[in-house]
Amino acid sequence: MSELGADPTRLYVRYAVAGDVAAVAEAIRVEQTIEFPADLAPEWIQQEVVGRVESQDEDGVVISFAPGVYAGGLGQVLNVLWGNVSLFEGVRVVQVQLPAAEHLGLRGPRFGGAGMRELLGAPSRPLLATALKPMGSSSDELAATAAVLAEAGIDLIKDDHSLGDQPWSTWRERVARCTETVREANERAGTAARYLPSLNVPAHEVFERAHEAKELGAGGLLVLPGISGFDTMRALADDDDLGLPIMSHPSMLGSHVVNPAQGLDHGILLGLVNRLAGADMAVFPNAGGRFGFSVEQCAQIRDECAAERAGLASALPTPGGGMTLERVPEILDLFGQDVVLLIGGALHRGDLRANATALREAVETH
Amino acid sequence: MSELGADPTRLYVRYAVAGDVAAVAEAIRVEQTIEFPADLAPEWIQQEVVGRVESQDEDGVVISFAPGVYAGGLGQVLNVLWGNVSLFEGVRVVQVQLPAAEHLGLRGPRFGGAGMRELLGAPSRPLLATALKPMGSSSDELAATAAVLAEAGIDLIKDDHSLGDQPWSTWRERVARCTETVREANERAGTAARYLPSLNVPAHEVFERAHEAKELGAGGLLVLPGISGFDTMRALADDDDLGLPIMSHPSMLGSHVVNPAQGLDHGILLGLVNRLAGADMAVFPNAGGRFGFSVEQCAQIRDECAAERAGLASALPTPGGGMTLERVPEILDLFGQDVVLLIGGALHRGDLRANATALREAVETH
Repeated sequence: MSELGADPTRLYVRYAVAGDVAAVAEAIRVEQTIEFPADLAPEWIQQEVVGRVESQDEDGVVISFAPGVYAGGLGQVLNVLWGNVSLFEGVRVVQVQLPAAEHLGLRGPRFGGAGMRELLGAPSRPLLATALKPMGSSSDELAATAAVLAEAGIDLIKDDHSLGDQPWSTWRERVARCTETVREANERAGTAARYLPSLNVPAHEVFERAHEAKELGAGGLLVLPGISGFDTMRALADDDDLGLPIMSHPSMLGSHVVNPAQGLDHGILLGLVNRLAGADMAVFPNAGGRFGFSVEQCAQIRDECAAERAGLASALPTPGGGMTLERVPEILDLFGQDVVLLIGGALHRGDLRANATALREAVETH
Repeated sequence: MSELGADPTRLYVRYAVAGDVAAVAEAIRVEQTIEFPADLAPEWIQQEVVGRVESQDEDGVVISFAPGVYAGGLGQVLNVLWGNVSLFEGVRVVQVQLPAAEHLGLRGPRFGGAGMRELLGAPSRPLLATALKPMGSSSDELAATAAVLAEAGIDLIKDDHSLGDQPWSTWRERVARCTETVREANERAGTAARYLPSLNVPAHEVFERAHEAKELGAGGLLVLPGISGFDTMRALADDDDLGLPIMSHPSMLGSHVVNPAQGLDHGILLGLVNRLAGADMAVFPNAGGRFGFSVEQCAQIRDECAAERAGLASALPTPGGGMTLERVPEILDLFGQDVVLLIGGALHRGDLRANATALREAVETH
């Protein structure tokens, strides 16, 4: 993709616009900065603070923002990128050029693809993930399932994202039981599986629960940025005392991407923004599963998970949402080896242990 | 609106569906609960945990969810309402029937409309709000503006939502200066204005900054649930040591509402969900301003801010986004007296003090 601009201090965004491009461009550059009649602002603010139209054509506009405007952290970066513009119809973020790392001031993924491979002792093969389900199962049942999956060689065993504090399996009980059985299974089988509880917990307890999960032996965290906020995920990733890998789940995020003429491109939100927010792994529904993402949209996420962006580590694309064992070769053809295959319910059709073992063999030999 | 169901323990949701209603209904009831092949789940889970199709017609489906499923707080309520369904095209939440208060377990707005009137000593007239802007101004400049607005009788003086920790006005400096000048202005003029700083701050500091703002004398908080998460707003509203009114700003939330066939209805997200999350005031762009909301959509938000819902206090609709003094009568015709008029940049065209005074007089005499 071509560069949007040459100033390493500025954030450049290309907005696709359906409608009167010049009018919308003028609205965006003001709306995302001073939210004030531009003619009433002091001249220097009009020049230095209001967004700058860098180029414009019939499809949209490139606007750039000064470092002072996006200063203060990821929340404000998102505000600038999409905050009030989200209220416009017919505007979509289709390309983002980040400022240089020292101006951006975000650490990004703690582990990234290379770090995850190192943690899991898997230098080259695709990584494997699955989810503990179905809701309604007891903590003991989920923990027993986790043990089977760990022994069979599944690398990452996460809670279903919706598991929180339901009566059938409360959060603390589940995290304690699953960490225990996964640890024992690893010892028995010589595997290195990690259990990732869902941080689907009250907002005022997110950080406390994350640390509690770590103390109990969790090997990572499943975070729902569409519910908890992207900057909450960023703060968890940045926490040196925590130091756990982060898997990002797309709950509630669909509205931002699935409407073709409005929102943010799939790769921007689920690839780039996830990386800005410290996700080591970005879950999204793969093409041909239970949801309607296309192959092209998935490829865009794949590319934005890996592209060189302001020195940020990569995130591993983690396609899921109705994947099956039979589709593994096709998924690897699309994503290559740097992928986490997230296969959930399908492992339970027939014998769980045999299916999980077959999945591990499939990626060893691909 | 007609009732969706009779069981006070269940959460009922009507989803409008463009496409094969029966297939999408089946997908939703599974997707929002067990995310697992329904036929592989134990029979009791199929009956008790999976969502139940209550009724179905050519426009959509009503699905209900058991109390165990939505248990654990607002995050999980949102997960059930919209989590994975957000990834479908052509599905929109158009009606919600909450369970009874004792099952819902959410306190809602601390003050609500009546409480805000009591706080502000304004038993019947429309309330007035404005924003400190433009970005680029110094803390001293913003604080001086705040003083003028407070003396002129504006009730609620909030930071522009995008003000965070920009170099021109850092957060602590601005909050300290604005609380000081608003307090002094109230003493001079006998007014009761409240300054609401924007909690556009890093996620791991949100609660600490909220308390710091209160200690400095802030009279409320501007929260961005689309950035910080709805449950973060809920936790701030629920904090008895804080006890501050909450104004909700729609930054990033537009994607959930502006696409006609996908998302959540305007009233559901910006009225009902804001109330579930403790907002005393719900900011949204009024019809005919800088954004494209229609009169009908605004009326829906108005109605959902006030409707009887599981014993929740009301929220005050706070239409803004390019409002002017000339439009006050028309806005009051649409919203009635139980409204916060949010007029920002327009007050700065001509003499700020004269405009703010005229606005206060207009609502006194309407």
